[in-house]
Order: sequence, then structure tokens, then C-alpha cells
Amino acid sequence: MARKLELHPDRLFPAEPRVRDLARDLYAEVAELPIISPHGHTDPSWFAGNARFGNASELLLVPDHYLFRMLYSQGVRLEDLGIGGHRTDPRAAWKILAERWHLFRGTPSRTWLDWVFAEVFGLEVQFEAETADLYFDTITDALQTEAFRPRALFERFGIEVIATTESPLDSLEHHQAIRESGWAGRVVTAYRPDPVIDPEFEGFQANLDRLSQLTGEDCRTWKGYLAAHRQRRAFFARMGATSTDHGHPTAQTANLPRAEAERLFGRVASGGHAPSDAELFRAQMLTEMAAMSLEDGLVMQIHPGSFRNHNRQLFDAFGRDKGADIPMRTDYVHALKPLLDRFGNERDFTLILFTLDESSYARELAPLAGHYPCLRLGPAWWFHDSPEGMRRFRRMTTETAGFYNTVGFNDDTRAFLSIPARHDVARRIDCGFLAELVAEHRIEDWEAAELARALTYDLAKGAYKL
Amino acid sequence: MARKLELHPDRLFPAEPRVRDLARDLYAEVAELPIISPHGHTDPSWFAGNARFGNASELLLVPDHYLFRMLYSQGVRLEDLGIGGHRTDPRAAWKILAERWHLFRGTPSRTWLDWVFAEVFGLEVQFEAETADLYFDTITDALQTEAFRPRALFERFGIEVIATTESPLDSLEHHQAIRESGWAGRVVTAYRPDPVIDPEFEGFQANLDRLSQLTGEDCRTWKGYLAAHRQRRAFFARMGATSTDHGHPTAQTANLPRAEAERLFGRVASGGHAPSDAELFRAQMLTEMAAMSLEDGLVMQIHPGSFRNHNRQLFDAFGRDKGADIPMRTDYVHALKPLLDRFGNERDFTLILFTLDESSYARELAPLAGHYPCLRLGPAWWFHDSPEGMRRFRRMTTETAGFYNTVGFNDDTRAFLSIPARHDVARRIDCGFLAELVAEHRIEDWEAAELARALTYDLAKGAYKL
Amino acid sequence: MARKLELHPDRLFPAEPRVRDLARDLYAEVAELPIISPHGHTDPSWFAGNARFGNASELLLVPDHYLFRMLYSQGVRLEDLGIGGHRTDPRAAWKILAERWHLFRGTPSRTWLDWVFAEVFGLEVQFEAETADLYFDTITDALQTEAFRPRALFERFGIEVIATTESPLDSLEHHQAIRESGWAGRVVTAYRPDPVIDPEFEGFQANLDRLSQLTGEDCRTWKGYLAAHRQRRAFFARMGATSTDHGHPTAQTANLPRAEAERLFGRVASGGHAPSDAELFRAQMLTEMAAMSLEDGLVMQIHPGSFRNHNRQLFDAFGRDKGADIPMRTDYVHALKPLLDRFGNERDFTLILFTLDESSYARELAPLAGHYPCLRLGPAWWFHDSPEGMRRFRRMTTETAGFYNTVGFNDDTRAFLSIPARHDVARRIDCGFLAELVAEHRIEDWEAAELARALTYDLAKGAYKL
Repeated sequence: MARKLELHPDRLFPAEPRVRDLARDLYAEVAELPIISPHGHTDPSWFAGNARFGNASELLLVPDHYLFRMLYSQGVRLEDLGIGGHRTDPRAAWKILAERWHLFRGTPSRTWLDWVFAEVFGLEVQFEAETADLYFDTITDALQTEAFRPRALFERFGIEVIATTESPLDSLEHHQAIRESGWAGRVVTAYRPDPVIDPEFEGFQANLDRLSQLTGEDCRTWKGYLAAHRQRRAFFARMGATSTDHGHPTAQTANLPRAEAERLFGRVASGGHAPSDAELFRAQMLTEMAAMSLEDGLVMQIHPGSFRNHNRQLFDAFGRDKGADIPMRTDYVHALKPLLDRFGNERDFTLILFTLDESSYARELAPLAGHYPCLRLGPAWWFHDSPEGMRRFRRMTTETAGFYNTVGFNDDTRAFLSIPARHDVARRIDCGFLAELVAEHRIEDWEAAELARALTYDLAKGAYKL
Repeated sequence: MARKLELHPDRLFPAEPRVRDLARDLYAEVAELPIISPHGHTDPSWFAGNARFGNASELLLVPDHYLFRMLYSQGVRLEDLGIGGHRTDPRAAWKILAERWHLFRGTPSRTWLDWVFAEVFGLEVQFEAETADLYFDTITDALQTEAFRPRALFERFGIEVIATTESPLDSLEHHQAIRESGWAGRVVTAYRPDPVIDPEFEGFQANLDRLSQLTGEDCRTWKGYLAAHRQRRAFFARMGATSTDHGHPTAQTANLPRAEAERLFGRVASGGHAPSDAELFRAQMLTEMAAMSLEDGLVMQIHPGSFRNHNRQLFDAFGRDKGADIPMRTDYVHALKPLLDRFGNERDFTLILFTLDESSYARELAPLAGHYPCLRLGPAWWFHDSPEGMRRFRRMTTETAGFYNTVGFNDDTRAFLSIPARHDVARRIDCGFLAELVAEHRIEDWEAAELARALTYDLAKGAYKL
Repeated sequence: MARKLELHPDRLFPAEPRVRDLARDLYAEVAELPIISPHGHTDPSWFAGNARFGNASELLLVPDHYLFRMLYSQGVRLEDLGIGGHRTDPRAAWKILAERWHLFRGTPSRTWLDWVFAEVFGLEVQFEAETADLYFDTITDALQTEAFRPRALFERFGIEVIATTESPLDSLEHHQAIRESGWAGRVVTAYRPDPVIDPEFEGFQANLDRLSQLTGEDCRTWKGYLAAHRQRRAFFARMGATSTDHGHPTAQTANLPRAEAERLFGRVASGGHAPSDAELFRAQMLTEMAAMSLEDGLVMQIHPGSFRNHNRQLFDAFGRDKGADIPMRTDYVHALKPLLDRFGNERDFTLILFTLDESSYARELAPLAGHYPCLRLGPAWWFHDSPEGMRRFRRMTTETAGFYNTVGFNDDTRAFLSIPARHDVARRIDCGFLAELVAEHRIEDWEAAELARALTYDLAKGAYKL
């Protein structure tokens, strides 16, 4: 007989009974607050077209690199999961996951998916080899119904606003369609210019051409290139964007004299740049983007420190984003100085910093955010978007930066169905952390209640101007 | 109606009831021990002149960069707080702090100040906008009374000895005056030669001239320069100093042959040094200082790893020490080797190491201190002088270095009124940590009691020869 | 009257009663499982000759650098302990340890030795100055009895298999003798080729000569040198080896074209190599060893990041391995890429990674092991082989790599008598960690039971092919 699947109401709260009681009370007040999702990677076409999702594997397994990288690490072939366009029986792929579900014990994927299984699909037995077919059928059947179309789920999940992330080369047609559809759901875009800023991005030169075509600017000149950015940023803002996002290998910034920047761009735009020019150009462009944010008010985000596509063979065979991005040691104190020397004291500019290098939390990020008016700390990110990761984030940043230099939670995900689960984990962990502070008499209970609401709702909404 | 301000007797103890009971018992035995403050930045003129402190803002806000950097990070202008000599109404500045007191939730500043408010000034309601005037008046009025003069507070706080920190160029007149006054309070100095050792210190060349004048040595020659240090160190020792302190950007040491050191000094003293010479000279001087410590017995401290005055605009407008010092990654294993190769095995030499880079605790500092006879670990420092910071320090150093290679607590502060609060936090956190070890049966209760006393009193007194 | 020595049955379990109950139940199921010791440094001659151990100091103090480095850090002379061949009265040396036993409060050495005292020797009073003679006599007398010969202890400890570590230049005569003796104890070797791979190893050139003699290959040619490795690996495998081990300063790997590798070896084998050649050659050899592992199936281990023999004076006077090895910051993401580019996706190759730089756990190691099929994470190592170290390891690796990309515990020790104590610590800490996950409803209790067994027994046996 299959084991029962139950989500315990006290999950993720600290075990000590008095702390747990405090956490439960705090959580009760924020559990039902709307979801503010200010940074993520859902596909706007879902909400534009509102088409049905396919089957269990197609929706939950194939796009989720958290899942398939773990299976891959334990010897599963990506071909057998239908990754990278390989044809496979989705039910067979789903069974591979079911048989190896124990691999995810102790990981956030397990927590998120159990929530999806129980709460979204009403499954009542545990996921394992024996229940793989039951799961596949239940999920796939549900997806054929009206209640599981994207807009219905969006509403059911209590999402107040969600931001997607698009390249400057994107037409934003889906965002346009959503706006024109009359649907009340608020889906906004965010400006992610890596493809036209990073000279090492695949297709960079062609991207510059495309940017010229889109904007009518001559993006082989420094002046035209900057004007094109301004134009696209304005267009993105009209499509609801309140933020930009920058996923560079490092947090390096630069503040070159205009003539020098122009010469650098000349080398980059002609493709004749030296390897070090790529890093310097990305660095300079972060400062240029900050300058534009001061003009147009878009909040700026930097997500640095990932060695993308580390597995060369896999990249050659399957392409990018296949679970082989590995964090690197990341410096902020030197890297951000050029930008901060110019804009660090601006009170009308917001720069939200993320990291994959937790050693920088207490050493660099909290002291920086606890001083510079423009800086805020993004939540525990990616590999650290997890119960232990969030606890480390709070423990290592709060004493120096406080709570009010942080910006609440964002889910940063493409896995639409898990979004409420991810926000729920953050709410539970934050309430548990606050409960510990109350139990140790470091804050009062009424302060914890104010903070729980701020961390859940107010800070994200405020910092991202949503 | 204003909320009550109460310091809970169990504050900062672990929440689990049995551990809390153990912590409470341990704390009861050390709570009233005298304060040994072997390293800090109080002003000796306070104790020499024993003049009244001014008003609440002048005493508690303007000099406390922990407070004003947080306000600044949230958009407050330093001018409005009266920082950097800007004239402002102290009551208005105080109100700005009161209105934003929530920013400090979860920070040690909140814990320290609540103690000052409740214990030093007897305030019984919480600090907030509505009570700002009550606070300002209560504090400012109290400061006009005899009981709140510096010496009276010193005695009330149970301070057995406090060390201040002075430059070799300081006349130590206030220390002289304290000694001649007949007052029983023990205030000693410490030798902090950065202004005459660091070629990048503002006014370095003029400082060398001044050092020559003070000592009668020719500080443009290597021999005279070293003799001047010896002379000033001896003078400082006569004024009670038992230690030196070195606040370099890195922990780099060097051990150059004499002729090479002399040539390096020649370049530095003539102002014609290359940029790399500055780092090398600082490095060489740490080893020279160690050599002198072997002669005169002064305990040596290194406080490395801060990027001072990171905010260029603020530095230009307001000068140094305005809450814009940001920690950097800091290496010890390579940096200290030249000094340790020469003096590491000396048993009559003590070198106390501090860090702002917690990643070095378990990786480098505890293994170094757990081996070299001369090394000891200073307590969790600056941004890490906090409940969570102290817990990380103990958790990451004890298993390799033990407790007896650490030196107890020091407050490192200029905020005189908060000194008992800071020591109280350390005592509570250490007792909580020891209680956990007892509860997990890793040490016996009688051992924890011995350790609590050692961490509170004996180790600081012994390591600093006080 | 001497204080009682008692090992509490709940030692090292979390203090919270419900979590402790869960931990106790989990532990009860794994406490008596046989010991799998897949990586360590016991001496095979003990089991070959089965001679009696000497006295308490000779067995427990002189070989244990955890103990004598701590004593040394507090001013004890190594000569007085009988280290480095210095003659001293073993009873007097033992007394020095007893008098300073408090230095070890809070360290794993204290936990391990208390277990040895109580469980192996039946001592019932605490170790301290007053009981030093009682301890010395009890232990030394016991060692003269049959029950304390190596093989008897091996059996009493419930060791199923233990791996030692030998150089390719070792004749493995003791392993041969064990195999021919008819004794049922399973003692296998492991291939540790640092002495013939690291050009900076003492005696490297002579070692190459010796390798040539042993194998009949010309180890001054690249082809002969590689063939010699193949031959010795095969011999080691016949003596039970299932793994190789590599203790390099860094984790750097390289993948040079054959001709370039051959030229590099030419420089190294002639002694005419540049300093950078040493690092490059070690790097290239890791990749060569991986290639051979693919052929012969030996599991590969890398133990990088130790600055060996940091104390120059001590090294000159006492030689290597005297407690002066200090960890360094260690990169994996760039360092391993050349090897992983070639073999990272092999499913029949296992590379087990260790670290002394805990900042790499969540940032680099867990993401790497959570993706690459060949990678597994070794347990918390050396300075981190401790209750807090193990907890950090689990907290920082599990959420990304899961449990099944780790390989259980290994003791990595030469301190034979402490082996059961070390495994017991690991079992208790792992059960405590699992209990916390259950208490927070992150895994089910039956899953925790499966995991406890896997972490104790199955994973080590499987990963090391034992």
C-alpha cells in the first residue's frame, strides 16, 4: 500500500516548541498575502495564449534543471529524459524520476514538488516507482482541464504581479497581447540586456545588427548603441518593466572617460577586441545602465558569479542551461567601486545585489548595503534558495544591514507551478528566523509581526516599485 | 500609550529550556565580574578632565558610525545628523534616529542602545518617534549630573582596566594627567603606529618630521626611525601600554635583509616610492614591530582586512571613519609566513590576530593559532561583534584552536556608555555556547563554569598582560 | 576524589528533546553496523606482525599531531613529548598531556580520547594531573595483553574493511603478509603516488630511479613513467586497492596535448624544470591518473588545499607532519575543468573530492557533485572532521548535492584506537542532522532510517567498491 503524502502544517518551522509556536503565529498572518514575484523566468506566452500545458514530464521535468541535473549526476542519460529535443516517451521519463525520487531527499526540489503534487494536483500518496503512473495520469489529465490553464493557476495562486525577463531583442508581443486581452492578471517584463552587452554571448555581433534594425539606431556607433538601449528601456517600461537585470560572470564595474569607452566599444563592435576587453566592456556597461536607471527610474539588479555551461561536452551536445552552471568566488568590494564612486550616494537609484558566494554575505554585501543609499540585497539566490540557504542569508546579513536593506523574496524561476511553494518556503523560514529573535528577546513580538509582513510583501513591492 | 522597555533577564540565551537553564547558571557566575577592556577607542581626555558629556545626540549618535551609516543607507543626509561638523539642532537629529529606530531591528546596535537606555538612564518606555523628546531630555538632563561624569560611569560600570589607542605622535598628556590625578581608575594606552608606518596614511611625510622632533632621532634614516619607535614604545609602556595595534589593509608581513629594508625605507622616507613599496614597507614593519615586542614585551595585535573610506564622495565631503569601511577577503596563511618564519616559535611573544573575513576562521586562523606558540585569536571583530558573529566565531574556531588560544572579549569601541552592554552580550553568548556543549555532553558543567570565567576575565587579563 | 568519567548515551545529539528522541532512535539502528574505513593511514605492519603496542605515550601521544600541536601552541616543547626521535621518559610526557587536558575542551580530540579511555581501556575517572599515572599504567599494562594486540582490537572494533595508504615505491610486503597469514581481517592498500608525481616532494629524483628499478621501466621517459604507474596500480589492485589518493597543494588539473606533456615531463624528470612546471605537472598527472582509473577501475580521491610544513624552523628541526599543515583557500570550479572536460561525463569513473576550505562546500563542490556523473563528495575532512564541521558539511552540501552524491564517513587517521570513536561521532552527528530534517517535516522518519544506514555503511561501501 502506498504511503500517504501529507504536508505538515508546521513544516520548516524550528523544532523547539516555544519557537515553533511563535513562528506559527507569525506565519498565520502572512500565509495568505498575495504573491509579489518581482524577478523570475516564466514565459509570457503562457499568459498571453493561455493554452493548456502538456503532460507531467513536459511541464515539471524537462524544463527543470534542478531535477535533471541531479538525475544526471547519478548516471541518468539526458536523452532518456527527453532533454535537448530528444524524443522519448514522457511516461517513461517520468518513471525514471519516480524511481530516483529518493535522490532529492533534503533538497528544496523535493519540498517544492511535494507541494505541487499535494496542493495543485490533490495527490494523496507519496511519489515513488509504484505511483509513477498514477502521478503521470493524474497530473496530465488535470492539465487538460480549464482549471489548470495558466491564467486560472495564476489567479488560484494569488499572484498580484509577476515579472518575466526578456532580451532587448524581444518584441514583447506576448506582453502586448496580455495587456490588450483585458485579463486582469498583472504580468510585467524586465530588461535583461546580456545578449547585446556581453561580447562573449553567443551571437553577439548578430544581436547588435538586430538591435539596430529594431531601433533604427546605428548600433555600431557608441552613441547609437546607447540610444538604442534608451529606446528599448523606454519600450520595456511601457510594457510594465520596473527593473533591469544583469547576469555577468563577475560584479566588475568600470567608469571610463567617454572617449575611452567609445574606443572600447569600437573594438567590441568590430569583433576585434582582446579577451580582456569583454570583461571591461561588461563592466563599463553596468555603469552606463546605472546612469540610464537614474534617468528612467528602472531598478537595477546584478546576478553575478556563475560559471555558465561549465560542462563542455554537455554544452556541445545539448546547449546552454543544462544544470551545469557552477558558482565562483565573487568580489564586490573592489568590483563595484567604480560604479559606486559615481552613483553610490544617489537616493533615487536602486541597485539590488545577488550572490552565489555566501562568504560575501557578512564580509562585503551587508556592509555595503548597510552604508550606500542606492544598495539593497536580493534574497538568497539559486543554489541558496533553500531553507538552510535562507537561514544563512538572514543570519549573516541582518546584524549589519538590518532587514530594511533587503528586498523580500523572489522566486527567480521558470517552474510556474512551484512559485507558491517557493514563496511559502521563504515565508516559513523568515517567520522561523523572526521567532528565534523573539524567543531570544532580541526583538518584540509586535516587531516580528511587522517584519514578517515587510519581508513577505512590503519590501518587494517597494524596492521594485511594483 | 508608549510601549514598555524591558530587558529580559534571559535575553540572548538559546531558546531550548534545558540549554537556557544551563546558560543562565553559567552567566550568573560571571555577570558581575569586572570589565577588562584591553582594546578600544575611548578618549583619555574624558577621564583626565572628567568634564560632563553634552547632549544625547552628541554623545550617542554623532560619534557612532554603526548608527549613522544605517540611517545613511536609508536615505538620511549626514548633514541632518550633525556629522562632519555640520551644525544642526541636536534634538532634531535625535528625532531622525527615533523615527527610524525600526531599521536597527536585529542589529547589535539596538541591543546595546536598549541597554544604555534602560540601565544607564533608567528609561522605561520604548524608543520611537513619540518618545524621542522624552529620551532626549532624560538623557541630556542626566548628563548634567555628577553621576554621569566619565569617572563616575567608569566606576559604576565596574571597569577594572581600559586601554585606549594612540598614535606615536600623541603626547599622552591625558594619560599623564590621569596618573597624576590620584584617581584610582586604571586607563592605559596602546601603541598604534599606523600614521608613521603606513606610507599611504594622510600626512605620512609630515608625521615622520613630527616623530623626529618628538624623539630627537633622525627619522629620515632607517636607524633613527627604528630608534624613534623604540623610544616611543618605551614611553607608551611607561604610560601603561601593554600592547601595540596595527590596522593594515592586509596581514602581509615581510622579512627583508637589513640592507634591503634600509633601501626600501629610503624610498619611502623620500616620498619617491613605487605603489608596491607601500605594501612591502607595511609588511616589513610588522616584522620589525614583532622584533621590538620580543625586546620590550608589548603584546602585538593585527587588525587587517578593511577597505577604509570606500565611499569616495563621502570621504571628500566628510573625511575618514564615516561608516564606509568595507571588509575584504583576507589571507593569513601566506601573508604571515615571513614573520612566523622568524618569530613564530617564540614563547615570550604574543601576536593576537583579528579578522573581518570569517571564511578564515576555520580554514586559516584556528589552525595557525592551534599550532604556533606566539599566536592567539582576538574575538569576533567589528561587523562580527554581534550575537550571530560571536556564535560563528566559537563554532568555527573552538574545535581546532580550543578556547585557550583565544583572548576573551574586547569591545573595540569609542561608544563609552555601551561598553558594559557589549561585554554583557559577549558573556551571554559565550555562556549560551558553553551551555550547548554541556547539553550535548561535549564538556562537563564544571568545565563550562571554568571556561565561562576564563572567557570573561582570565584570558583577556593574561593575554594582554594586564 | 577523582571525577567520574562517563560517556553519556545521548552525547552529540541535538538538545531539543523531540529531536533528540528521533536522533536516538535513528542511531540505535546504525550504532552496531560494521566499520567501513575506506581511507586512512594505519600501518599495515601492525596487522601483519600483530606485535604489541608499546606504552600510552608511544601509542596515543607521539603519533597524534592533533594532540601535540595543541600542546605546542601553548608553549610545550616537542622535545619534552618525545617527538622527532627525542628521548624522553614516556610517563613524564604523558603527564604533560594530563596537566593540560583542559586545552582540549571543545575539540574532537577530547571526544575521541575520552571514548578510547572509557571504552577501550575501561577507565572510570577523568583524565587530569592526579590520574595521569593511573592512566599511564592502566593503558600500558593493557597493551601488554593479548586482547590489545592489533588484530584483536581490529575484530573487537567491528571493522569490516580498512584501507591503508602507500606510496608506489612501497613493496606492500605487509599487505602480502596479511593475505598469506590466513587471518580473516580485511586490510587493503590505496595508491598514493605523490612521492613520484610531485616534483617538489623530497627525494623526487631518487624516487623516479627507485620506481624504474621496481618496475623495470625507464621512468626518465614519459612512456616508461606512465607504464610504471600502470604496473604499480595493477600490483596495488592485486593487494586489494580499490582507490588512489592525491594530496596536492591545489586541485589544479591540466589536459595537455601528448607532445606537450612529454616535453613537460622531460623538464621535470631532468630536474631542470621551472617552478611553474611543478604545478603544471601535478595538474597533468591528475588527468593521467583519471585516464588510468577509467582503465583499471580504481576510484580516485583528491585531498587538496593544505600548505604543508608551514613552520620552517620546526620542519628543519623535526621534519614533516608535525601539526604545522595549514589550509589554504582552494578553487575547484576552474581547477577541475580540464579533467572534467575530458572525463566529467564518464559514468564508470568516480572522483571523490575533499576540501579544507568550507567556503567551497555550497559554492562549488555541491553544485559540481550535483551535476557531474563522475563526482562525489568526501566527508568533512581533517580540521573539519568534528561535530560542528560535520554539521556544516551536511547543511551546506545536502540541499544542492543531496545525500547520494556523498560517500559516507572515512576516518583518515593513523590513530588506530580512535577509529571507532570517530565513526561513532559521524553516526551520531548524521543521525542528529537527519532527526532535525524529520522534526521540520522535510523528510519522513522512514526515509531518515534509510539515509542513516546509507551514510553509515552503504554509501562508503558502494562508492569505494569495497
